[in-house]
Amino acid sequence: MNQIITFGEVLMRISPRGNKKFIQSNAVEFYFGGTEVNVGISIANFGGKVKHISCISNDFIGDTAISYLNKFDLDTSEIVRSSRPLGVYFLEVGAVMRPSSISYNRSHSSFSEIEPSMVNWETSLENGNWFHWTGITPALCKGAQETLLEGLKLARKKGMQVSADPTYRSGLWKYGEEPQKVLAELIEYSTIFIGGINEINELLGTEYSYSNDDFIDASKELMEKFPSIEKVFDKIRTAKNASWHKIRARMWNGTEFRETRDLDITHIVDRIGTGDAFAAGLIHGLQNFNDYKAMQFGSAACAIKHTYQGDVNYANEREVISILEGNTSGRFNR
Amino acid sequence: MNQIITFGEVLMRISPRGNKKFIQSNAVEFYFGGTEVNVGISIANFGGKVKHISCISNDFIGDTAISYLNKFDLDTSEIVRSSRPLGVYFLEVGAVMRPSSISYNRSHSSFSEIEPSMVNWETSLENGNWFHWTGITPALCKGAQETLLEGLKLARKKGMQVSADPTYRSGLWKYGEEPQKVLAELIEYSTIFIGGINEINELLGTEYSYSNDDFIDASKELMEKFPSIEKVFDKIRTAKNASWHKIRARMWNGTEFRETRDLDITHIVDRIGTGDAFAAGLIHGLQNFNDYKAMQFGSAACAIKHTYQGDVNYANEREVISILEGNTSGRFNR
Amino acid sequence: MNQIITFGEVLMRISPRGNKKFIQSNAVEFYFGGTEVNVGISIANFGGKVKHISCISNDFIGDTAISYLNKFDLDTSEIVRSSRPLGVYFLEVGAVMRPSSISYNRSHSSFSEIEPSMVNWETSLENGNWFHWTGITPALCKGAQETLLEGLKLARKKGMQVSADPTYRSGLWKYGEEPQKVLAELIEYSTIFIGGINEINELLGTEYSYSNDDFIDASKELMEKFPSIEKVFDKIRTAKNASWHKIRARMWNGTEFRETRDLDITHIVDRIGTGDAFAAGLIHGLQNFNDYKAMQFGSAACAIKHTYQGDVNYANEREVISILEGNTSGRFNR
Amino acid sequence: MNQIITFGEVLMRISPRGNKKFIQSNAVEFYFGGTEVNVGISIANFGGKVKHISCISNDFIGDTAISYLNKFDLDTSEIVRSSRPLGVYFLEVGAVMRPSSISYNRSHSSFSEIEPSMVNWETSLENGNWFHWTGITPALCKGAQETLLEGLKLARKKGMQVSADPTYRSGLWKYGEEPQKVLAELIEYSTIFIGGINEINELLGTEYSYSNDDFIDASKELMEKFPSIEKVFDKIRTAKNASWHKIRARMWNGTEFRETRDLDITHIVDRIGTGDAFAAGLIHGLQNFNDYKAMQFGSAACAIKHTYQGDVNYANEREVISILEGNTSGRFNR
Amino acid sequence: MNQIITFGEVLMRISPRGNKKFIQSNAVEFYFGGTEVNVGISIANFGGKVKHISCISNDFIGDTAISYLNKFDLDTSEIVRSSRPLGVYFLEVGAVMRPSSISYNRSHSSFSEIEPSMVNWETSLENGNWFHWTGITPALCKGAQETLLEGLKLARKKGMQVSADPTYRSGLWKYGEEPQKVLAELIEYSTIFIGGINEINELLGTEYSYSNDDFIDASKELMEKFPSIEKVFDKIRTAKNASWHKIRARMWNGTEFRETRDLDITHIVDRIGTGDAFAAGLIHGLQNFNDYKAMQFGSAACAIKHTYQGDVNYANEREVISILEGNTSGRFNR
Amino acid sequence: MNQIITFGEVLMRISPRGNKKFIQSNAVEFYFGGTEVNVGISIANFGGKVKHISCISNDFIGDTAISYLNKFDLDTSEIVRSSRPLGVYFLEVGAVMRPSSISYNRSHSSFSEIEPSMVNWETSLENGNWFHWTGITPALCKGAQETLLEGLKLARKKGMQVSADPTYRSGLWKYGEEPQKVLAELIEYSTIFIGGINEINELLGTEYSYSNDDFIDASKELMEKFPSIEKVFDKIRTAKNASWHKIRARMWNGTEFRETRDLDITHIVDRIGTGDAFAAGLIHGLQNFNDYKAMQFGSAACAIKHTYQGDVNYANEREVISILEGNTSGRFNR
Repeated sequence: MNQIITFGEVLMRISPRGNKKFIQSNAVEFYFGGTEVNVGISIANFGGKVKHISCISNDFIGDTAISYLNKFDLDTSEIVRSSRPLGVYFLEVGAVMRPSSISYNRSHSSFSEIEPSMVNWETSLENGNWFHWTGITPALCKGAQETLLEGLKLARKKGMQVSADPTYRSGLWKYGEEPQKVLAELIEYSTIFIGGINEINELLGTEYSYSNDDFIDASKELMEKFPSIEKVFDKIRTAKNASWHKIRARMWNGTEFRETRDLDITHIVDRIGTGDAFAAGLIHGLQNFNDYKAMQFGSAACAIKHTYQGDVNYANEREVISILEGNTSGRFNR
Repeated sequence: MNQIITFGEVLMRISPRGNKKFIQSNAVEFYFGGTEVNVGISIANFGGKVKHISCISNDFIGDTAISYLNKFDLDTSEIVRSSRPLGVYFLEVGAVMRPSSISYNRSHSSFSEIEPSMVNWETSLENGNWFHWTGITPALCKGAQETLLEGLKLARKKGMQVSADPTYRSGLWKYGEEPQKVLAELIEYSTIFIGGINEINELLGTEYSYSNDDFIDASKELMEKFPSIEKVFDKIRTAKNASWHKIRARMWNGTEFRETRDLDITHIVDRIGTGDAFAAGLIHGLQNFNDYKAMQFGSAACAIKHTYQGDVNYANEREVISILEGNTSGRFNR
Repeated sequence: MNQIITFGEVLMRISPRGNKKFIQSNAVEFYFGGTEVNVGISIANFGGKVKHISCISNDFIGDTAISYLNKFDLDTSEIVRSSRPLGVYFLEVGAVMRPSSISYNRSHSSFSEIEPSMVNWETSLENGNWFHWTGITPALCKGAQETLLEGLKLARKKGMQVSADPTYRSGLWKYGEEPQKVLAELIEYSTIFIGGINEINELLGTEYSYSNDDFIDASKELMEKFPSIEKVFDKIRTAKNASWHKIRARMWNGTEFRETRDLDITHIVDRIGTGDAFAAGLIHGLQNFNDYKAMQFGSAACAIKHTYQGDVNYANEREVISILEGNTSGRFNR
Repeated sequence: MNQIITFGEVLMRISPRGNKKFIQSNAVEFYFGGTEVNVGISIANFGGKVKHISCISNDFIGDTAISYLNKFDLDTSEIVRSSRPLGVYFLEVGAVMRPSSISYNRSHSSFSEIEPSMVNWETSLENGNWFHWTGITPALCKGAQETLLEGLKLARKKGMQVSADPTYRSGLWKYGEEPQKVLAELIEYSTIFIGGINEINELLGTEYSYSNDDFIDASKELMEKFPSIEKVFDKIRTAKNASWHKIRARMWNGTEFRETRDLDITHIVDRIGTGDAFAAGLIHGLQNFNDYKAMQFGSAACAIKHTYQGDVNYANEREVISILEGNTSGRFNR
Repeated sequence: MNQIITFGEVLMRISPRGNKKFIQSNAVEFYFGGTEVNVGISIANFGGKVKHISCISNDFIGDTAISYLNKFDLDTSEIVRSSRPLGVYFLEVGAVMRPSSISYNRSHSSFSEIEPSMVNWETSLENGNWFHWTGITPALCKGAQETLLEGLKLARKKGMQVSADPTYRSGLWKYGEEPQKVLAELIEYSTIFIGGINEINELLGTEYSYSNDDFIDASKELMEKFPSIEKVFDKIRTAKNASWHKIRARMWNGTEFRETRDLDITHIVDRIGTGDAFAAGLIHGLQNFNDYKAMQFGSAACAIKHTYQGDVNYANEREVISILEGNTSGRFNR
Repeated sequence: MNQIITFGEVLMRISPRGNKKFIQSNAVEFYFGGTEVNVGISIANFGGKVKHISCISNDFIGDTAISYLNKFDLDTSEIVRSSRPLGVYFLEVGAVMRPSSISYNRSHSSFSEIEPSMVNWETSLENGNWFHWTGITPALCKGAQETLLEGLKLARKKGMQVSADPTYRSGLWKYGEEPQKVLAELIEYSTIFIGGINEINELLGTEYSYSNDDFIDASKELMEKFPSIEKVFDKIRTAKNASWHKIRARMWNGTEFRETRDLDITHIVDRIGTGDAFAAGLIHGLQNFNDYKAMQFGSAACAIKHTYQGDVNYANEREVISILEGNTSGRFNR
């Protein structure tokens, strides 16, 4: 089979409507998200088969979270339950020059209890051909890092592709490990690198600039240090303000450098999860198209995600292809 | 009297709030619409007297639809009722490069039951001086086409003006008639043509380009083939994306070509019914102003409709005149 | 395996909030339901494995319906898609002496297109040990009746239990068949009869009264005429008004008559689907408990359903057992 | 023609959802109401032709109020507009032993500006055969009292029926007239008295008790003092708490005393306007049925109004008749 | 001055609307609560001066919580802030026989960080004449217990009244102390005991029954063991179901036994915080009325709280007095 | 102490959601506002101590208004209550070229009853070091103008700074005084002038142009005529349409002319209160920074206010400083 495996925390996201703050209204909405499950759901919406591994609270909030994953037809059969509460994040969505604000309640969540002994990687990876991980999971706690490492080792042993999105978020990493060292070890078991100059510099201790030439050089050096890495994909965002962004992507696949044109996103609805939408589009694309089209697909997926409220990219494959083909004028689908 | 007569299906429109999809929230809103009744309501909001003829379900949904028309002071006294359900359309409003999506449930609706015998055109047109029709109605079913044709014949016999918006929508026309032939017959009973190069090419089998010169030539050829047509009005839309459009209009009234300047619509709320708002503004304008000002009024009405949620243009005459006069900076009305 | 199979139309239910009418507010909510899928979802919530067979529209409304079934972990792999729209029903929830009102839009729905050739009963029943049907499905159209009959035949051939809820709704049955004859043929392939005096009198042409003695006699006569029937379960509702009901149940299983005590439901939230909750509780109970406890479980499930908005019974097995054990004072679960 | 004429203030009602207080949520809902227009809308919902006379603000709130009346097909052609704001009332709906609270902002409203010269009673009553007034209008201001008196005089001159609901609300009557004297003068032009012991004692300075015998005696004395009065109808409410009432009605029509049975209203949704629903049912009934059935119809109309949010009774004639016939168990209308 | 001091955790309460479950809708509402702050807010609504001491997160959720307390004019000047998240509880409100369900996320909340060194009891109690505590606070963690004990000691030293609501909740008490021992030590510094047979039996290891005689004996024994206790107040609840309760109260003040009549609460809106409303009413009453009227006031306050959504009792003194005086029929306040 | 004193009417603002009109939905939201209290709340959000003086209705709407002010920690102890209703304004928020519309109901509000005898300026200004007033207050009624004048006189006597925002709104000023004369007298007691060319020309009867040179000359002439004025600050807005504005500010402080760069506000959420946010930012800035930085702070505060729904600026000092420092790309705050 060809299941994509994602592993990571599922968070409840609670947010006032529109651009309101919590102090303005006690009517709020919740969604579920988390960077890896966002990727999983997005791939499922493109038509892929996805299994998500996690540890979720055994209360009605956890039941609701799992039903949310089921709704998108994810395989939730290997999710374990815990008596700790589900992690929560509170979000106030900004506008124009007002940034969005996030407050987390995740440090003692159900996922923070995870240990290698709790996940059966043999059965979990049974039907898998792709494993996706991000830098958030190993940043959360020792158990999460060890569980992930074990999974990656088995994935590589089984010859699965492994995509790494080694986002480094300094507010996490509270359990005493050195981020650079931990991430480097995990990247040794990865084949697709989804990250840019910042992530490479962080890993290699280098100082590459944002130029395309430097991007190629940085990618080459990365592949030298981590020979398992076959391809590097970078997404570049420029922001006029919180409501108006431009994105494009570039790649080095060992032999070829390519770059997409800019996509202009003038009226952002919700930018959370847009990076995950890029990764999901890329993974789906690499399984179905050539490298350049995969990157274009990821880029279009990222762009359309800005138009959906919540963490999740609801677009299906046809809708993303349509944007990739240049239909960005928003004409009706009847 | 000087009643404007509209004839066509009334649909229930069901839509999630803002830019959400149905999968995101079970809280939705409904409005009523339909291209001809949209025109009627808009004219009523400008202060015109309007009677709408239709066939509506005889359940509480139909009661609600009629009360919706009454709310805008339309004359609903000639509406007939049917035991079939009211037609419905589901709408997901897009944003930026994401197009809006529509799904119809209308093929066996109450209106699809209409037959010439069900409408008393004599009493219906008694106080009328203007009849407006669109290409949607004859596309729905044989009965609708025949009923419309009968109405148009009587309208012309009574010397009423007849405006035609011969929109051609390929997803309809399922009942076996040739659209070009049917529309041509209806246009023989029309005096004002609201349509552009696409509609004229469709009717005449020609291949005019979008240039102003071609527009004039096409209009002349149209008037030659259909001598009842006195004036041709065309609205042109260019879209940056689903949230940002520009519109302008042009006309040929047999002697004069005129064109409006562009109106820039940067933050679209809802573009459904904006063409109907143009038609309504034009019809109201032609009854109250000269041709050029009527076209400007239609153009301003179209622009302001983009700022109202729902099918309906809520602007009154004073508000449209204000835009026509160049007050587009959105200063407060206190 | 031990999958429960349900077969029937999935409808979109659209309803104003609380006790409002459509004329009062354009803010409405939607759920999905349909008598058989209600039973299926309820059993899934009790922990059973359920597969639902249906024909659903291939638009975004159909996608949302399927995601709704997935949310409750139903097996939706055998659902077929159609280009016709999903059936809809509009509901105004009553209160006190005001009855609820329903208006249907289902006569040309996606499900009405179903034909025996569209369902692969072999694969559909592969893992099944129970088939549940109701009198709504054969009332809709010839294709639905024939498809159901074919499924029942195979189910019996495979030795599955078949529960019948032969509700007779006179507003349906428009396609020209004699209800009594059709239902009788289907009951020949059934083993559990979920229905009361009305349904038996309808089937047998008898005139039994509502007394317990008559219920036993009627059940005996039913079993004589339909030897496949092993057990009869009847739910009795008495209504003070639309907000305050009492329910109890009784059974004849060939050897024993039993009756539950009354359950007093003083503040009804939503009574739609309460009969389906009874059936679901009964089916789940018969697979896990003795006949009397199964009936009690069904009765408690029916009672608690009155407290949930929508068609679906959200209670899990533990929550129903708690009511069955007499915990009806509503103390907190912390 | 047979128009019912109502005359009185239209108020905007603003209220939090459900049983909330303004301090709990900034999400509120508005309706329009006012005792006389409530009667008018209710009669229109029964199928009667109704014209409402009032003075309404000439801003977008006034436009919305008039569109609200149009929605129910009231004749609004004689409504005058004023530059003062529409009257408003704020409502917090109670529950159980918590009473509802109302705060008014009406003392300088558009209606308070009304003067006899503003209403053309000749055209207003042209098609009328019934005039309904209440004790609220003459309590508001001198102009309202004088305008009403003028209307009543013409109504009687034209031989119209005049129903009086002389509710006495002590919080009003701020403009310096003696309520008893003013009401007495108005009742001289009335034919149907809708009121009970309190209202009669207030008018006559008597001390009748609530017994049926006293009711008959009081009615007789009233008719003696005011010979135009032909019939007296009294509605009696007993309250367990704010959520649970009983109502019944009694009448003396000069020759016969009749009394309805109690209607038990166990889960009140909104009790505002229930007295108006009684009056409306009675007026509609007296035009279509005999006195006793008219009173029963009024009583049933009053009861069902308790199940609708807002000031307005949405029930149609068929729905009220059904309750009158004893169908109070709230069975579905499909 | 005469400030009432409350000390305890402030929790964010998140709950779907009405009786929905989280799985039914992603639209939810939040309030703030916590047993001690509920008491404080309620007393402030009666007109008392209240200072609440707590430890609250230093993010925008904490800001919102503090603004919520300010809204009710509580003195929040001594609240300390923490980098841990605010505690949360999720609530699904039951109906009829369906119990409400609660899930907590509080074990590592900002309040759980509290230590005696963080609270300046000298300034905190400066203007205080009453200190109220409950059994929840010492159950949370060692720091909370020690901080509370220190506060009580100072309060008694200053001669303040100390009311104890020693609710024992077995789901808490995870930090290794013996509840009975901890509570006993705290009660040594208390003067008013708000609790019943269960609480007394728990503390004394006795087995008193619920009879009034046993209540008196139990109270006497309690006062003997804890001579600081001057009065004992007990609230008794009997539940027909989750929507329909009865409450009454009884007291022993060392010399006199008194009992209130039953208050019948037929349509419960929200029962969370009703015990806190009783305590608040009692404390306010004891400062303003005699013991019996104080208990009646507490009882009426408890009853009316059942009609407000959220943790908080919004009733003011006048509204509670009105119920106490028997005005429980819910007549309008205009 | 260093309290900022604001004095003025508190209005209830009622508005449909998003860009809807009242005719589109009966679900609306309310906030409280008023130009002076907006300034006060905004300063409180920056960390300042603010006391607001007003006259507010003594009903539950007034209670809610005061709790709203308390929520932002304003000192409400000197607010007086009145039996008249709170002023209300209805707002329909425009979009693109559709202007927002406002309708007031304030002419007989609780504030309109204010008289000098109702405010104790001695205690009110006890802890004040700054008094802010606007041209709205003296425009409302004689009593408001006299009360303000008395306050200003005492403020100056105590050496407080007095900032004047002499906005001239022609729709007010109904009580018979000459605006220019009244404003001039009040400006004699002011030290900071917040206004531009229009306000100066109005006051001086001059005809200065909008150029910077004229601004300097106008400011100089103003300071000559009103020697108490020390500094003049002007905010300039240019509007592409109702959704897209640019703002900048300029100043003359007697010795120096400075100007800020343009801030581009591309997706306006709500522009009400943005001028008040500028004034608040300026006042806060002048107490904490130099003149130029104060103006920049005011300008940034004004800009960010456009992103908050309601009258109030929710930004805190840190958030405004961040924009002032050029962080206008809207990156997340985690």
